[in-house]
Amino acid sequence: MSDKAWGGRFETDLDEIAAKFSESVSFDKRLGEVDVRGSIAHVKMLAARAIVSEEDAAAIVAGLERIGEEIAAGELEWDERLEDVHMNVEQRLTDRIGAAGGRLHTGRSRNDQVATDMRLWTKEAIDATCARIDNLLGVIVSRAPEHVGHLLPGYTHLQRAQPVRLAHHLLAWVEMLDRDRGRLRDAYDRMNECPLGSAALAGTTFDLDREQTSAALGFARPTRNSLDAVGTRDFLLETVSALSICAIHLSRIAEELVLWSTQEFAFVEMSDAFTTGSSIMPQKKNPDMAELVRGKTGRVVGHLVSLMMLMKALPLAYNRDMQEDKPPVFDAFDTVNASLDVLAGSIAGARFDAARMREALSRGFVDATEVADWLAAHGVPFREAHHVTGALVRKCVDERKTLAELTLDELREAHEAFDDSIYAALDPETAIERRALHGGPARARIAEQVEQWTARLAERGVEV
Amino acid sequence: MSDKAWGGRFETDLDEIAAKFSESVSFDKRLGEVDVRGSIAHVKMLAARAIVSEEDAAAIVAGLERIGEEIAAGELEWDERLEDVHMNVEQRLTDRIGAAGGRLHTGRSRNDQVATDMRLWTKEAIDATCARIDNLLGVIVSRAPEHVGHLLPGYTHLQRAQPVRLAHHLLAWVEMLDRDRGRLRDAYDRMNECPLGSAALAGTTFDLDREQTSAALGFARPTRNSLDAVGTRDFLLETVSALSICAIHLSRIAEELVLWSTQEFAFVEMSDAFTTGSSIMPQKKNPDMAELVRGKTGRVVGHLVSLMMLMKALPLAYNRDMQEDKPPVFDAFDTVNASLDVLAGSIAGARFDAARMREALSRGFVDATEVADWLAAHGVPFREAHHVTGALVRKCVDERKTLAELTLDELREAHEAFDDSIYAALDPETAIERRALHGGPARARIAEQVEQWTARLAERGVEV
Amino acid sequence: MSDKAWGGRFETDLDEIAAKFSESVSFDKRLGEVDVRGSIAHVKMLAARAIVSEEDAAAIVAGLERIGEEIAAGELEWDERLEDVHMNVEQRLTDRIGAAGGRLHTGRSRNDQVATDMRLWTKEAIDATCARIDNLLGVIVSRAPEHVGHLLPGYTHLQRAQPVRLAHHLLAWVEMLDRDRGRLRDAYDRMNECPLGSAALAGTTFDLDREQTSAALGFARPTRNSLDAVGTRDFLLETVSALSICAIHLSRIAEELVLWSTQEFAFVEMSDAFTTGSSIMPQKKNPDMAELVRGKTGRVVGHLVSLMMLMKALPLAYNRDMQEDKPPVFDAFDTVNASLDVLAGSIAGARFDAARMREALSRGFVDATEVADWLAAHGVPFREAHHVTGALVRKCVDERKTLAELTLDELREAHEAFDDSIYAALDPETAIERRALHGGPARARIAEQVEQWTARLAERGVEV
Amino acid sequence: MSDKAWGGRFETDLDEIAAKFSESVSFDKRLGEVDVRGSIAHVKMLAARAIVSEEDAAAIVAGLERIGEEIAAGELEWDERLEDVHMNVEQRLTDRIGAAGGRLHTGRSRNDQVATDMRLWTKEAIDATCARIDNLLGVIVSRAPEHVGHLLPGYTHLQRAQPVRLAHHLLAWVEMLDRDRGRLRDAYDRMNECPLGSAALAGTTFDLDREQTSAALGFARPTRNSLDAVGTRDFLLETVSALSICAIHLSRIAEELVLWSTQEFAFVEMSDAFTTGSSIMPQKKNPDMAELVRGKTGRVVGHLVSLMMLMKALPLAYNRDMQEDKPPVFDAFDTVNASLDVLAGSIAGARFDAARMREALSRGFVDATEVADWLAAHGVPFREAHHVTGALVRKCVDERKTLAELTLDELREAHEAFDDSIYAALDPETAIERRALHGGPARARIAEQVEQWTARLAERGVEV
Repeated sequence: MSDKAWGGRFETDLDEIAAKFSESVSFDKRLGEVDVRGSIAHVKMLAARAIVSEEDAAAIVAGLERIGEEIAAGELEWDERLEDVHMNVEQRLTDRIGAAGGRLHTGRSRNDQVATDMRLWTKEAIDATCARIDNLLGVIVSRAPEHVGHLLPGYTHLQRAQPVRLAHHLLAWVEMLDRDRGRLRDAYDRMNECPLGSAALAGTTFDLDREQTSAALGFARPTRNSLDAVGTRDFLLETVSALSICAIHLSRIAEELVLWSTQEFAFVEMSDAFTTGSSIMPQKKNPDMAELVRGKTGRVVGHLVSLMMLMKALPLAYNRDMQEDKPPVFDAFDTVNASLDVLAGSIAGARFDAARMREALSRGFVDATEVADWLAAHGVPFREAHHVTGALVRKCVDERKTLAELTLDELREAHEAFDDSIYAALDPETAIERRALHGGPARARIAEQVEQWTARLAERGVEV
Repeated sequence: MSDKAWGGRFETDLDEIAAKFSESVSFDKRLGEVDVRGSIAHVKMLAARAIVSEEDAAAIVAGLERIGEEIAAGELEWDERLEDVHMNVEQRLTDRIGAAGGRLHTGRSRNDQVATDMRLWTKEAIDATCARIDNLLGVIVSRAPEHVGHLLPGYTHLQRAQPVRLAHHLLAWVEMLDRDRGRLRDAYDRMNECPLGSAALAGTTFDLDREQTSAALGFARPTRNSLDAVGTRDFLLETVSALSICAIHLSRIAEELVLWSTQEFAFVEMSDAFTTGSSIMPQKKNPDMAELVRGKTGRVVGHLVSLMMLMKALPLAYNRDMQEDKPPVFDAFDTVNASLDVLAGSIAGARFDAARMREALSRGFVDATEVADWLAAHGVPFREAHHVTGALVRKCVDERKTLAELTLDELREAHEAFDDSIYAALDPETAIERRALHGGPARARIAEQVEQWTARLAERGVEV
Repeated sequence: MSDKAWGGRFETDLDEIAAKFSESVSFDKRLGEVDVRGSIAHVKMLAARAIVSEEDAAAIVAGLERIGEEIAAGELEWDERLEDVHMNVEQRLTDRIGAAGGRLHTGRSRNDQVATDMRLWTKEAIDATCARIDNLLGVIVSRAPEHVGHLLPGYTHLQRAQPVRLAHHLLAWVEMLDRDRGRLRDAYDRMNECPLGSAALAGTTFDLDREQTSAALGFARPTRNSLDAVGTRDFLLETVSALSICAIHLSRIAEELVLWSTQEFAFVEMSDAFTTGSSIMPQKKNPDMAELVRGKTGRVVGHLVSLMMLMKALPLAYNRDMQEDKPPVFDAFDTVNASLDVLAGSIAGARFDAARMREALSRGFVDATEVADWLAAHGVPFREAHHVTGALVRKCVDERKTLAELTLDELREAHEAFDDSIYAALDPETAIERRALHGGPARARIAEQVEQWTARLAERGVEV
Repeated sequence: MSDKAWGGRFETDLDEIAAKFSESVSFDKRLGEVDVRGSIAHVKMLAARAIVSEEDAAAIVAGLERIGEEIAAGELEWDERLEDVHMNVEQRLTDRIGAAGGRLHTGRSRNDQVATDMRLWTKEAIDATCARIDNLLGVIVSRAPEHVGHLLPGYTHLQRAQPVRLAHHLLAWVEMLDRDRGRLRDAYDRMNECPLGSAALAGTTFDLDREQTSAALGFARPTRNSLDAVGTRDFLLETVSALSICAIHLSRIAEELVLWSTQEFAFVEMSDAFTTGSSIMPQKKNPDMAELVRGKTGRVVGHLVSLMMLMKALPLAYNRDMQEDKPPVFDAFDTVNASLDVLAGSIAGARFDAARMREALSRGFVDATEVADWLAAHGVPFREAHHVTGALVRKCVDERKTLAELTLDELREAHEAFDDSIYAALDPETAIERRALHGGPARARIAEQVEQWTARLAERGVEV
């Protein structure tokens, strides 16, 4: 070591820098409750197997239960010098019940302990996020019935394309979000194995009952390979992938709310409770909540990249790098949860402007497809039908007319197949009702979907 | 437009630049075969519903089948001026069978067509990748039995920690890869719905039989919402997430092969067929394949980020941006597939050096845990047992001994609980055999795992 | 190796799989021209130092020059069995000039060779991309003068906020893109050091003249540390970071073109040459080019992530992983270049609709700031001025008026400071002209900026 | 709004959820000090331009100075209901000095205010990080002289390749880190323009002196376009790119420390102060600090992805999404800073084991290049020299010899050019000293580099 300025400085500071750099209790204290629960299951099993005495086990359980209450009440004082949540809990236990506390860690290592904690925490977090998704689904489904009669242009390339019902558009959001939920549930099932008993990396010589701890903690079964059990974090990568995809779906919904809130679209007015005004322009309702939901997408995906880069090329089994898995996972859940809640509130209070949406239908030739389909249904090869319609639209553009304003003569000049029934086909309501196939926007199809979603959500305990 | 230099240049070039920028056939031609299959299913249904005549349908089917053969044989000449795979196939069809070809596109849009194609392609790609994972699993499982008797240090922090069997370590890889397979299968199931009939975004007025096309193409059911069906790409995000996690697992295995190939570890010698030498140092066997597998991880994760950024904040339904979904998906599969194959070959041909691994066990006090566990099993509170062991190890370090070289007197000086049976506990083979709980490295547990994996793989058609 | 099915399969295929997996000539052939140039500089230096004879050097140079011509003409047949670009060139050289070709590689390794090649290639790619940025800057600056008189709302939160000139908005794009250019130039300067002479990793015993090769290849100086020279790729990370930021700027411009192309905004109509129509709706001009530019952003950022993950935690010096640096770098340049060209063409041919933009100004109270500023300029504390204005806007909303339609009495009721001069302040043209400070939208400021940009671009050889 | 369970719940909670979701003071309070400084410069300029009175300005300045002191002392109570740092400061000012406080915001908007704050904060953060890099550079350079005489194998593919001096290896780290510093300085220079005066997006009607505020705050000049000034965040993307590349360099150094700390390499022993032991294995010194540095790489790169995704496709000018720019920037700096400090301490206290490194040189034929070079220097074409050497190494492998143990007869059997002088060439010290070209590992070159770096660092105020 040098005797130079920078060297001398380190002499006294080093320990502190390293300690601060490597402590994790400032964030892993969030595992406190599951850590205590895991320890209780572990010590009860140790007692059942006579590895610790019933007396010691009882004292440990009582001590841990009390610590669990302190954590829940926010009363436990976490000490960063004790490094992590596990050592904090254990120290507190020993302070409380004395030497017997030292027997808790028999047949266990912090490696299988933290792997168990993270699985327990993540499983519960998934349940909570699924409940939030269900709540948002409930909000959207509940808004659908009132908007079955409200027509707006469906867009491709953000250009008006064909008419749809607002309810149909809302139910597209439902489909997206429900798949997000499914991904989280699959992740839950795959991680639902208990690492306890894997110890540092090679299992333990103590005759543990891994089935007992696994069952007590609500896992489906114990893990099958001790090296894998303490060395893997793929359950976190999968979970944050699912959250990222969900965040992307939320960003798409948010983008539509931002667009629809512009003076140019004006399809929606967000409620006062979910917009901020400008102190100077009270007519202005900035769609801040939607913008923030959109902006927070990057945050979740950034966490995913962080985790993937973290795990890349790490040899088995545990490496200290893996301590860094927690902040991105915690914040990914927090961010998605908050976004789900705020979108639920935003959509619940949104006022859709049926008149503006309908007005948008009147321009943009969103009925052109009807003409082509009408021709095709009357025997004209589809590509020819397209061509004829194209020529008619061009004529309308030049003469500043709509298709419905063309006379039958004008139509028949373009193609002799036309007859009077074409005019009915051009009415948007008619056009939509004729799209009555499964998955389409016709009233009956929407009603079915609303009914099915309502039933599905009821099964999950959400009343629409 | 300006009459300036830069402007003048564009006058003639523009169309070409834009055409080249926006064509997709140079990469989406890879969808050719599934595109043809989808069209055949569509036109058969159109005929069944009498939307096109049986004659026309027969001509179209025959034409498409012929085109499918041309594609399979690599004989179809793709034309970039026809923009994409769909227009190429349709043009070829019309060239071949004339105007009737124009009826194929009835009740369909490129939007639902490409969504269907991508689902069909990805489902098949998942099947193929799962077969490759199974093959690699087969290779690893088949190597396990010969390495049950070979002991090596398990590592944490890349420091020698506790002894394990090489077979146990190999089976940890199996666990990781099998979960990767599970994620791909879940993605498959979730995307297994047919978008055909969703048309541009709002369904179609033709009375299509969506159940028929769905079943004919091997989907479980038709999609439920037309806007969602053409507007979503979450099935690709999920698939490439699963591939990314798999790539990260492969990078971890590769890292271990790189480390074990060093002169310092020397636990493994890769076969000649899977290393490159140096033209100057023939003793040198660079673990190039493992390095490349490790390096390609970033490629797959990069594609995931690309797709997530692509889909962020896109309003419904189809946007042209989504054309960019294909190159990352194709290359993510290609990269993971090649890595799986090359690792299978590498591991199949690897020669593990049992002597070097065993030698590594002799230093590093990997038996210290045995001492602590022995004490704990003899009634000493675990934290105290740890403390006593620590003091013994320190004594050994100072006196340049191993723990097994301490006399019983020296041991009893540290703690009176010690007796002669401690020495047996220090033998690595004994130490491992005492770790006989589920998931542990004892012989019996390894045998069970090998048996179970062999059975599982047999069910998937892989003989070990 | 197993005698099982999967094993047997590998027996014959292995070499081929590994060879295909590890070859790089299929993509690094793109370095062919710079590789030849680097070799010519190297051998001339070897001759100057009498390490190879003048005769041999002359033969090698002549051979390489011929190979360079073959490469430029696309006539060299690359052979994947020769692994990479370097071995292909050297083999071709030896084929052509015989054994003397073997002296070329004296005092050199593929490690310093490829590091030199990548720097040479990237430097030239940066020059080419900067020229494309300059071209796009020229297009935008040349459009500004005609749009000084065209007013549109500036937006915050995508809500109309305050009036600006279209020329001012266009010049904001110029600022963004010019910083992108600056980042690329900084990357160029930092990588402008020649690795040749670093050999495999530790320099060479040959008495090379590193200054000579460095100068001959246009580098500023040789690198300073041989391990670093062959082991680093930060110059690629920096370059692709700069390209990623540029891609994000392009996505922002593209997003505005997409928005402005909607029927709702209708501020711009892209030229026929840079939109695709719909075969059915000829009035429809999908802003495909802008959508694709937006979509390709993820592609570039994905490549950046790929490279960063690639280089993470690689020990010095060269690792085979680094072979994977090329595809993302090449494609990042190709993608940004194509986006720059297509935006240049799009913007050159865009028709802005001054009437629609002006109409958008008339609603949304974009003049509210004027009222508040007027009050503040007349001595009212700013927060009070804001408050008063807010009340007036609310009144207008209720009474469906604009601020300009309020009578002076109505205004004075809100605050006694108002006088007649307020009405002039509400005219958008006046409002803008009063924003005459540096960086503001007043005519004089725009004129200055156009003049300065024209001069800057002229210095770079771009005539506006 | 629904009267259902989920709906009713929102009725009372909504405002609170939205408020919590959108507040930023919990993190942007970190801008407090620069916010105050920016406001002081603004109001002094307002007074100089007689836009506010000298009396008001004096009161505002005094109030702000006092608030600045409170912030520095950690005494200001931030109120989340006041949304952000700006409103907190302004409210506190008005509380303290009354209505005059309301004049502070004249001619300014939160949009240009926060853009200015972020530039000020980032510039200072860059200075602080550069100082930390310089400190780490000082540590490394100061370790070099003692390790000039210590030889170790340089590695490629993590295989022993050629001998180098440890000092040379350390100086490779210096080169990497110094370029990181250069990137940060370039980012600093590019962002060194003052947005104040850009107001909401279109400048202001007040006759501000932008040169004055710019100079007072230490900027080089005011920004040139008001829309760009408030709408861009590329300076953050560039800064976090530079930090990400730095983090990748740190991960590479950390990886080497982890590898060198293994029992297999054992080239280094980290000081007690920068390792954690295992409570059970006191000989074990886990390289936790290096592992955490490596692990935190993903965190920084994740923040970069987050920011890039955040800014993708945002239309001009300000969008609320941009509020999310702060957490990733703050944490990226914190993470890199902590990693720099902890590496400085780790390297300062590391004990390198010269004997182990030297021992590693004796195996692995790292002298094979010498043989080939010796032949090439004696007139043998390089590729032939390689071939001959290869044969010799193979012979040694077979006969378990080193190259130096071959007799001259054996050598001459392989090639007649060999003579006695070859043996001297095989000594690693000699081999290294013959690599005396610029950038090479010879003593004289190392001495020059140490001298130059010492001088460079002295200019930056760092004494080695």
